[in-house]
Parts: sequence; structure tokens; C-alpha cells
Amino acid sequence: MKVLWIFAHPEQRSLAGSLLAEGLRTLEALGHEHRVCDLYAMGWKAVVDADDFGPEGSRAAPRDRLFVGAEQERAYEEGQLSADIRAEQEKITWADTLVFQFPLWWFGPPAILKGWFDRVLVQGFGFGLKGPDGRTLRYGEGGLAGKRALVVTSVGARESGFGPRGIHGQLDEVLFPLLHGTFWYTGMAALPPFAVYGADRLSRAGHARSAQALRERLRALETTPPLPFRHENGGAYDEDLVLRPQFAPGLSGVGVHR
Amino acid sequence: MKVLWIFAHPEQRSLAGSLLAEGLRTLEALGHEHRVCDLYAMGWKAVVDADDFGPEGSRAAPRDRLFVGAEQERAYEEGQLSADIRAEQEKITWADTLVFQFPLWWFGPPAILKGWFDRVLVQGFGFGLKGPDGRTLRYGEGGLAGKRALVVTSVGARESGFGPRGIHGQLDEVLFPLLHGTFWYTGMAALPPFAVYGADRLSRAGHARSAQALRERLRALETTPPLPFRHENGGAYDEDLVLRPQFAPGLSGVGVHR
Repeated sequence: MKVLWIFAHPEQRSLAGSLLAEGLRTLEALGHEHRVCDLYAMGWKAVVDADDFGPEGSRAAPRDRLFVGAEQERAYEEGQLSADIRAEQEKITWADTLVFQFPLWWFGPPAILKGWFDRVLVQGFGFGLKGPDGRTLRYGEGGLAGKRALVVTSVGARESGFGPRGIHGQLDEVLFPLLHGTFWYTGMAALPPFAVYGADRLSRAGHARSAQALRERLRALETTPPLPFRHENGGAYDEDLVLRPQFAPGLSGVGVHR
Repeated sequence: MKVLWIFAHPEQRSLAGSLLAEGLRTLEALGHEHRVCDLYAMGWKAVVDADDFGPEGSRAAPRDRLFVGAEQERAYEEGQLSADIRAEQEKITWADTLVFQFPLWWFGPPAILKGWFDRVLVQGFGFGLKGPDGRTLRYGEGGLAGKRALVVTSVGARESGFGPRGIHGQLDEVLFPLLHGTFWYTGMAALPPFAVYGADRLSRAGHARSAQALRERLRALETTPPLPFRHENGGAYDEDLVLRPQFAPGLSGVGVHR
């Protein structure tokens, strides 16, 4: 396999850093290729702005109102996206599996990683493609279809708080914007997230158990069944993109989409 | 009221920009005070790093491993957080109501706003406080208790896709990390989010309707019932922070917490 490992932690000498090293060793032992994006080490620019869209002269009317989505799509099609964005798109194209490793801050990815999605997965590349019959390819189809994506996250809180009725919210529903709204939206199969809980106060034994669990998850990278999200074009949704009544009858909320 | 309006859009000459202007005019007409954080205009630094925690010499062991949460708390207590963070905390303390206005990118706030939460709401300020009986004050109590928070978001997609069974996920559950995990976690009452759908192709009439709807929401800022999230210390959760069986019996997922 070709694994792109996106690492979004400011400190390599952390639990996250040692899990990254462990993960890469494991991938090597399994004979997989890997490339790493260490976003902090790269000095990754987190914020979308006009500088992303090529030199000012390349824009149709540089002093006009900036339409972010349209400008991203135009710059992508004209090869005018800034070099750092194009480099990430090239790595994604190379990979068949993406691993996103980050500490859970405010129940989501740190800003530096959020900005990676905002800047890299532009219309025309990650989504906004059409099938031969004119259908929009999204949710199970799209620019990144055929790839798998795994979240590896470290969480300060205890595991029970992220269970089905835990106060912080069931983890895969808390991560719905990422798992369903980003991975699945662009066509990637979302694997069940891998989380290390109580990360701030992990004992030596807890650390060893986490490393062992990560090795097992990586060994099963090709075979782990992804989260069973529904395909947009699979017949479950009507013309208004609402789930038809015979699916998850009587239920509502993000849980109905799997 | 004292309203802090946090604006996270790169273009003032946008639908978002005109809704901001409309919103501020409405607040003035109602006699409310307001302050604006235009994150792009401020050049807000989105990414947490060691520079947030004061001059290098102030850290106990600057070359040691960086523990982000602990370092944020220490720097806050010692008045060593960087000046841009302290300025935001001062504005939050001044306000009784916070409005967060942003385009929905990848089903969440743009990186520049995510980084505002990551950097500003540190332990000791936004959370991590204890009550007189030693209980942790969180979810309905905490550093920002007594304040109200409103999301104003513009969304490219149609409204039906964000309904209770819409493919993108029910909006208040998609925004659970923000509404419950950030606002409510720090003690703020989360108002029902205000969303403008189909924002990329809004007609003149649609624009006028959105402005009118925003004015109505702002007039009701003090009286709108917040989302009925459960208090951590209100008896509904057990010692493991799991919802007791008699509440939302038989159900699971993020929807059980309201």
C-alpha cells in the first residue's frame, strides 16, 4: 500500500510523536510505502486567502470580490494553486490510504489540519466531479474514491465519555464532519477512528498498550470494514437529498446515515 | 447587551460581509453595544505553537517537551499568553453574548476560527475551573457561564440536506463539536444556529429574506430559548460521564444530550 500520513501535532517528543514513529516502523515492516506530512514541521499555512490562487495577475479581476469556492476551482483547473497546495494534492493522488493523526482539540482537528482540508480539497480535485450521466459524484464517489482514510487521535478525556451515551458524544458522531462530511464526501472509505484516551496521563503500560493497538490497526488497514455510510447515488436519498422513509424509519440525526 | 461579533470570512464584499453590516446596524438600533473581531482583517494567527506561551525564558524548561494544555494553563495564570490571545480573552470577558459568523467549510468553521478556539479558550479561562465542592465546572457551568453564543453561518448547499434526515446531517448535530463541545462545555448557552442556505447563488430576494431573518434573530437575542443541552452536574450523568438509563432510554448518539 501507499500510505500518506498527515501529522498535526506541534511536538514530536509527545505521545503522538512516538505513535507516529511506531506507525511508520509498522508500515515499513509490512512492506508498505509511506510519505509523511508533518504539518507543523512544514510550517503549513492554515488559512485560505487570495494568495492561494496564484499570482494576482492570473485572476480574472484581482480587485473584485473574492469567491473562495469558485476561485479555488478556477486556480486548480489552470494549475495556478500555490505550490504548497499542489504538492499536497500530488501526495494524495499518489496514496491509496490516508492517515490523519491529531490531538482532539475542541472535539475536532487542530486549526493547522482544518486548514489543510480547507485549502487542499478544492472543487474539481476532491469533489464537484460529475459522472457520465451528469450526476454529482459525492458521498462514496468523487475525486478521492477508492482511497481509505483513518483517523488516529489522542484525547485527554476518558473513553467512557465518548461512548454511545457518553457526555462528550459518541466519537464517530462527534467526528461526523470529518468521517462523513470530508472523507466520505470526497469518496474515501472512512475507517473506524483509532483513539487513545486519557492521553495526558498515560502510564508506561498504557503507552505500550496504545502502541500495540495501533500496530494491530495498521496490520488490518487493507481489511478493516469501513464505516457503512450510505451512498448518495445508491437509492437511499430522494431528490432533495433526504433519506427515504423506508431507511432508518422514524429516526433522525446524523446516526441515520450509516 | 454587550455583543462580541467574531467574523471569519476572507471577503468583506460577500454575502457574509453584508450580513455582518446588517447585523451591526440592527444591534445599534436595538441599543446594544458591540465589538467586532474580523479575524482575517486582524491577520489572526490560527495555529497554536510555543510562541503563544510567552517569551522563551518564561517557560520552566523551554527546550523540554511541549505539553500544550499544561503550558496554556501556566501561561494564562502567569499572564504570559501572547498579547493577541489576551486581547481576545479581554473581549470575551467584556461580552455577554458572542456571535460567531463563518462560512461552513467542510462542515465546520474555517481554520482561522478553529484556531481562535484552540488558542483563546485555554484551561483556567474557558474551562478547568472547579466549584466550591471540588466538582469540575463544565457543560453548562465554567469560565464562560452566563453568556450566550450564536452561530451565523452561510452554507452552499440547500436546506433540505441539513434537515433531520438530510444527507449532510442535521445541522445542530453536525455542529455538535461547536454548540455542545465548545459553547456548552465552557458554560455558554448555545442558541439555535442561524444558517443561510444556497449562499453561493442567492437571488436579490433571497438576500433580502436572509437579512430580514437575521434581524429577527438579533431582536430575539435575549429571549430565544437556547438548545436544551443537559448539565454535567445536573444528575443525568453517572460517575463515568455516561447518561443514566432513565434519560433518553434506549437511545444513543449525540442526540441524547439534549
